[in-house]
Amino acid sequence: MAQQRVLIEDVQPQVDAGAYPAKRTVGERVDVTASIFSDGHDHLRAEVVYKFGKLGTWMSVEMESTVNDNWSASFYVTEKGSYFFYVQAWVDHFDTWYDGIKKKIAAKLDVSLELREGAEFLRAVAGTHQEMMRWADVLEDPTKVKEATERVMSDEFEDAVHRHPLKRHVARQEKELEIRVEHAKALFSTWYELFPRSSSLSPGKHGTFQDTIKLLPRIAAMHFDVLYLPPIHPIGKLNRKGKNNSVTAAEGEPGSPWAIGSDEGGHKAIHKELGTLEDYKRLQQEAKKYNIQIALDLAFQCAPDHPYVKAHPEWFRQRPDGSIQYAENPPKKYQDIYPFNFETESWKELWEELKSVIFYWIGQGITIFRVDNPHTKPFRFWEWVIGEVNKKHPDVIFLSEAFTRPKVMAALAKLGFTQSYTYFTWRVTKGEIMEYMNELVNGPSRNYFRPNFWPNTPDILPWHLQRQGENMFIIRFALASTLSSNYGMYGPVYEFGENTPVEGKEEYYNSEKYELRHYDWRRTNRMTDIITLVNRARKENRALQTTWNIQFCAVENPNLIAYLKKTDDLSNLILVVINLDPHQRHSGYVQLPLHQLGIGRLINVKLRDLITSEDYTWTQEWNYVELEPHKMPFHLFKMEIHASQM
Amino acid sequence: MAQQRVLIEDVQPQVDAGAYPAKRTVGERVDVTASIFSDGHDHLRAEVVYKFGKLGTWMSVEMESTVNDNWSASFYVTEKGSYFFYVQAWVDHFDTWYDGIKKKIAAKLDVSLELREGAEFLRAVAGTHQEMMRWADVLEDPTKVKEATERVMSDEFEDAVHRHPLKRHVARQEKELEIRVEHAKALFSTWYELFPRSSSLSPGKHGTFQDTIKLLPRIAAMHFDVLYLPPIHPIGKLNRKGKNNSVTAAEGEPGSPWAIGSDEGGHKAIHKELGTLEDYKRLQQEAKKYNIQIALDLAFQCAPDHPYVKAHPEWFRQRPDGSIQYAENPPKKYQDIYPFNFETESWKELWEELKSVIFYWIGQGITIFRVDNPHTKPFRFWEWVIGEVNKKHPDVIFLSEAFTRPKVMAALAKLGFTQSYTYFTWRVTKGEIMEYMNELVNGPSRNYFRPNFWPNTPDILPWHLQRQGENMFIIRFALASTLSSNYGMYGPVYEFGENTPVEGKEEYYNSEKYELRHYDWRRTNRMTDIITLVNRARKENRALQTTWNIQFCAVENPNLIAYLKKTDDLSNLILVVINLDPHQRHSGYVQLPLHQLGIGRLINVKLRDLITSEDYTWTQEWNYVELEPHKMPFHLFKMEIHASQM
Repeated sequence: MAQQRVLIEDVQPQVDAGAYPAKRTVGERVDVTASIFSDGHDHLRAEVVYKFGKLGTWMSVEMESTVNDNWSASFYVTEKGSYFFYVQAWVDHFDTWYDGIKKKIAAKLDVSLELREGAEFLRAVAGTHQEMMRWADVLEDPTKVKEATERVMSDEFEDAVHRHPLKRHVARQEKELEIRVEHAKALFSTWYELFPRSSSLSPGKHGTFQDTIKLLPRIAAMHFDVLYLPPIHPIGKLNRKGKNNSVTAAEGEPGSPWAIGSDEGGHKAIHKELGTLEDYKRLQQEAKKYNIQIALDLAFQCAPDHPYVKAHPEWFRQRPDGSIQYAENPPKKYQDIYPFNFETESWKELWEELKSVIFYWIGQGITIFRVDNPHTKPFRFWEWVIGEVNKKHPDVIFLSEAFTRPKVMAALAKLGFTQSYTYFTWRVTKGEIMEYMNELVNGPSRNYFRPNFWPNTPDILPWHLQRQGENMFIIRFALASTLSSNYGMYGPVYEFGENTPVEGKEEYYNSEKYELRHYDWRRTNRMTDIITLVNRARKENRALQTTWNIQFCAVENPNLIAYLKKTDDLSNLILVVINLDPHQRHSGYVQLPLHQLGIGRLINVKLRDLITSEDYTWTQEWNYVELEPHKMPFHLFKMEIHASQM
Repeated sequence: MAQQRVLIEDVQPQVDAGAYPAKRTVGERVDVTASIFSDGHDHLRAEVVYKFGKLGTWMSVEMESTVNDNWSASFYVTEKGSYFFYVQAWVDHFDTWYDGIKKKIAAKLDVSLELREGAEFLRAVAGTHQEMMRWADVLEDPTKVKEATERVMSDEFEDAVHRHPLKRHVARQEKELEIRVEHAKALFSTWYELFPRSSSLSPGKHGTFQDTIKLLPRIAAMHFDVLYLPPIHPIGKLNRKGKNNSVTAAEGEPGSPWAIGSDEGGHKAIHKELGTLEDYKRLQQEAKKYNIQIALDLAFQCAPDHPYVKAHPEWFRQRPDGSIQYAENPPKKYQDIYPFNFETESWKELWEELKSVIFYWIGQGITIFRVDNPHTKPFRFWEWVIGEVNKKHPDVIFLSEAFTRPKVMAALAKLGFTQSYTYFTWRVTKGEIMEYMNELVNGPSRNYFRPNFWPNTPDILPWHLQRQGENMFIIRFALASTLSSNYGMYGPVYEFGENTPVEGKEEYYNSEKYELRHYDWRRTNRMTDIITLVNRARKENRALQTTWNIQFCAVENPNLIAYLKKTDDLSNLILVVINLDPHQRHSGYVQLPLHQLGIGRLINVKLRDLITSEDYTWTQEWNYVELEPHKMPFHLFKMEIHASQM
């Protein structure tokens, strides 16, 4: 310990000094970096030592120094579960000696003493390598200085020094760090949201799971792989909300699916107008045939007539008059919702019950939960319950619907949420988009926060989509689906271009949250065609199946944004160019990042636009692009570098 | 624990997640910041809890939230030693309730139920406060709603809510953090370096400590308070270096003081030509009368004839032929220096011996060590030995002379060095200086790295001082002495403007390191006058006694740099404006940072230039400044804000 001379600092990836694991998905590369240095000028060697699982076998990969005492090494994670790693480093006197004697030989100095030292080093590292022991004899023989010098200068010798480090007084990073590796879907998923009650083909009729089954071919044709349903439980009858969020519902109004629970049941029951549990399970089975997984909404709150309120009043906050405290944001009141009181003395029973809800639905086949407002329930509850689920069902995905302050969103992701809604919904200009992507991909949250980009949700019709034409919808869709490998849309209103807000708000007028809607589910249009093509491109191109590989390209027009997405091995290259102005044609020159692409002076790049099927050949670093939004607001190029030019 | 809803993250100040203490000096303010947030929208309260010493009494100071879930609070450290602190926070339902009822009253809602809740809260927090119990009675009385409402809206009630938080389910930062508080000199010191062998008033004569005593009035007149002497030990005779670093010394050449040890003794002995230990101690006593402390050089390396080499060959690296390995940087050899081998199996004896050297000199009265090249000795050794010294002698200052890579310099400061040499020596342009100060003052190293700025050293005559006139020396001096509260100069060559380099190097020609020099110690000049005035200003103005209070001021001319230094209470204000161009007159408008100065629209600021004694009155935010370097390249303004205008 006292003889250890190396310091190892700032090992990455890590989250809050190891308080939480860093996240990766199967097949991803882990880039480990650290600051490593010692006193003096001796040569250092360093390695990342890692294993899969607590009981795994330790493996190691050598680190290389870059600049400013930074070192790095990479390995791929191939199994689901936890990897553990640490960094170790040491002063390698053999390597120091080797560097010194080469310089002295070059300076034609007498190295006879150095050769004898070299013999000692060789013997120390040779182990069972007889040849190195023979080299040592040569280096030690004062009559063989010339032969010994040639031996030292040989490639074999360099190789031996590199392969046989002199490992003494090894310094080791104190704390092992964990990497939690999840299945690929955690990073690559394509979400479609609809209200099953609006899935009927007959106007005015309450949709059922049976109706939703009939929509599966349409959704599958557009290549979505997650079908997210708002809550499917009985809707509260007390204080039910009416059309456009009016305080009282008229007779026959269906209410908001997020006001969960009535005399018909609570979080484990099914709203009977949608069908039975059997119907639901049939939907799930049919969806599976199309490779579509159902995502269930997890909204831990109660309508006033939820069975919990009577059975467990101690799970709610009681007021001095014995009534239950409804949700409020003074002076506003939300009398249709009773929040749980997580500070109750009966917190343990409450936690267990909510856990049982999750396990109940997992038991029915659910593997994806979209969690409603997780930031209004305690962090420690989520950390516990997600941990409990992960122990038995590591593949379950939890999507955090927390549109709130940055540190709160980050904390939920750290403690276990698989994916998170983001601020993408409000990042519109080129500068905003680039800055946000840079924060997500290159900031510390890259290790725990997996974005899921949504251009709209039932709660949000953002300003820039309001009363806009189809082009803006296409632009926002193209951004979401190519910037982020996880993305989703609140489907029917998006593909049919619904854009009327409640005046002065970012909310849908006649929101489906409070009423049944009818859509012409047979209709396709330019938007559905584009969705189909882009989602197919996402399926077929690995470069679009991760968010972490983005490389923005210079283009001098502020209305044009361009970015490259590439696989580590450059076998799949996608170049996206989007005109952010839905009204005007824009043109400009896009710079190919030649260094990133491994392209030298001669450029011969073939591009196929996967939307228009047009082909291009680029032979310059800067290439002219022109986008007329009324034709198509974006290019989605699949790029091939002509091999002879690399 | 399960009911705790608050998360506390990123508590500052901390160094490497608490691995090392943060540093402050007596009288400094500690600004504690943290990210604090919970689920939901309830109100939070937070406090910093701190104590002095392991056995101290816990005190607390309330934190305030700023933006983005950041919270902060400050306290002053007044004692030398270790402070410990942590942050705790909780959801305060009393405060949440209070905010809600105020809004409901404003919206004229019925609050009778809320008043009853308030009564419960009052009783929960009242403790022995009878008045609050009486308020509770009023709030609970259905016949006194009007009186109760007025009571709630009263200032006394607001005050009670603030002073009597409802402290339930308190979340506490896991790890207590340490702040090591050192004496004021660690942050405010003014160093003068000279070679005592050159202190004789008679040309050609080897200077002695007796001669150095005669220089004390001169050094004290310039208001220096540290006199740093290069090593005063016997100089090696074997392989001694000659004039201008020549490999062999001619007969009678004195050698380098850093080649320590000969048959006359080692690190605990005194070079006999300088005098005896008694002479040294007289110098120390005489210096003390002038409030000057001696700083000794700690250079842990040996000349070939150092007694250690014979007595403890095992402390050095032995070569196959039995010789001792000298220092080298292949293909260069430094045969006059034997480095210690800290990896020796006898490391324990070596460490103890080196520690005994430090304790020996502390025993002679030394309290400041300038440590030569600490980055060529192991970090763990320094951490141990400085720790051992601090246990018994917490006031001892160690200055790290590590002109090396940033992370190495940072590590030495973290593990215990009190002060550090810096890159200031090479930061010349306005941009370089501002960027570097920003890094030092606002970067993470602010918590452990105390800069000591040197415009030159015996090893460094930087490019920008070479063959330059006096103005450049004045500019660099003014920067060092006003940017950093710790600064020093290699004195005689600086005040006499010596500027001849070894061709093509940043080294002095005819360096005093290898020969005796003679100076006309009676001569004063423009430079010594300026040094005297600036150092006096430093003594008399608290704003110049810390490095952490700098605030750069906008000035549009890139040749002019301007900065404000102020005490926390604004009772002492210094404004520095420097013309960085030694040759040309430059002018421009300097912006006063009105907000920082607490000045509103009306401006009436009196300035006295402490160098020229000229007075100015500024009545504008932007003020004209003109600096003719041949008159004076800088202003050192003492500023007073006319009270009636604040």
